[in-house]
Amino acid sequence: MTTHAASRTPQQSRSRATRRRLLEAAVECLAELGWNGSTVAVVAERAGVTRGAAQHHFPTREDLFTAAVEHVTAERLAAVRVDTGELPPAGPERTAAVVELIVRLYTGPLFRAALHLWVAAATEEPLRTRIVALENHVGRESHRAAVEFLGADEGIPGVRETVQATMDMARGLGLANLLTDDGPRRAGVVREWARILDAVLARADDRS
Amino acid sequence: MTTHAASRTPQQSRSRATRRRLLEAAVECLAELGWNGSTVAVVAERAGVTRGAAQHHFPTREDLFTAAVEHVTAERLAAVRVDTGELPPAGPERTAAVVELIVRLYTGPLFRAALHLWVAAATEEPLRTRIVALENHVGRESHRAAVEFLGADEGIPGVRETVQATMDMARGLGLANLLTDDGPRRAGVVREWARILDAVLARADDRS
Repeated sequence: MTTHAASRTPQQSRSRATRRRLLEAAVECLAELGWNGSTVAVVAERAGVTRGAAQHHFPTREDLFTAAVEHVTAERLAAVRVDTGELPPAGPERTAAVVELIVRLYTGPLFRAALHLWVAAATEEPLRTRIVALENHVGRESHRAAVEFLGADEGIPGVRETVQATMDMARGLGLANLLTDDGPRRAGVVREWARILDAVLARADDRS
Repeated sequence: MTTHAASRTPQQSRSRATRRRLLEAAVECLAELGWNGSTVAVVAERAGVTRGAAQHHFPTREDLFTAAVEHVTAERLAAVRVDTGELPPAGPERTAAVVELIVRLYTGPLFRAALHLWVAAATEEPLRTRIVALENHVGRESHRAAVEFLGADEGIPGVRETVQATMDMARGLGLANLLTDDGPRRAGVVREWARILDAVLARADDRS
């Protein structure tokens, strides 16, 4: 390793680590404190970074939180992609496992953080434009992943809409879990939904 | 009409009218301005009422907005109950019409208002307790109405969960409609779900 490389690389890697700590702290703050309580100063403190350093990475509050939800979503999707290596082969058990994976994404702290950001964006204009773009991107990525994991053939009428309905239901379950633990009720709904979705996927060829 | 009755009734009816104007203005404000923008003063001004009169009816901000979402929900459910007189008889067309009714409830200004209140309640304690109670009440009422309108037999395994899944999906569709007009995508999802739900309701007796 040359002196030149040694003097640059640790600094770049420190900068990347700082950035990542800020993004993760931002999502934690949003999930716990909501939009009002999540200032850049609060996030910087949680990340163990000066406010100046935080602003060097993210000039505005909107930059920080939009990037945070985007970053953590990409990480979760990548983690889910690894988990799917362990899924059962095609069939009712795989469908049930994938539906559970999707619902878990929508009922965890990331969804809670995103929900605070989405709702704040409804009444705050600089944020709104950013979040609409993010929503399109995240929505497309999540849908594509669901289709892949389910092995769904979207060329068959009704399959695309039923996969979308699954994401919509998961989003609704996430919202129902905001103030109270909705776990016991949710388990029954998810089990029944998985059964129905699997029947749609399995029967799909007979319908076209 | 006696003088006595005449002197009391208009005053009571003015008071009821004031209360109603405040509740309706509160839901409008929440839907448009979110929780931060919805103060008692803003609502009183919109309702054409003094701030003192507003506080006479609703001592705290939490009282006003919780009562508002409860009142408007009860009114919407009553209005839906009237509309159901016009529904087609049992069968796929009725199921589709009921699913559309439910989804319309979750994609209008009332849902938007409730969403702002729900999300604020996640990080504000005096509000949280009130909203959890309201959520239980509204959830039970909406579920009961859906079961009745669909003519669903909840004694049959899977039916209760599928009706619940319909409400969860509608809630998710409401959230997806917050920042952009999701109408065209939603139409396809709702059509497909109505077809699936109708098959579950119609096939239900064969499964028990």
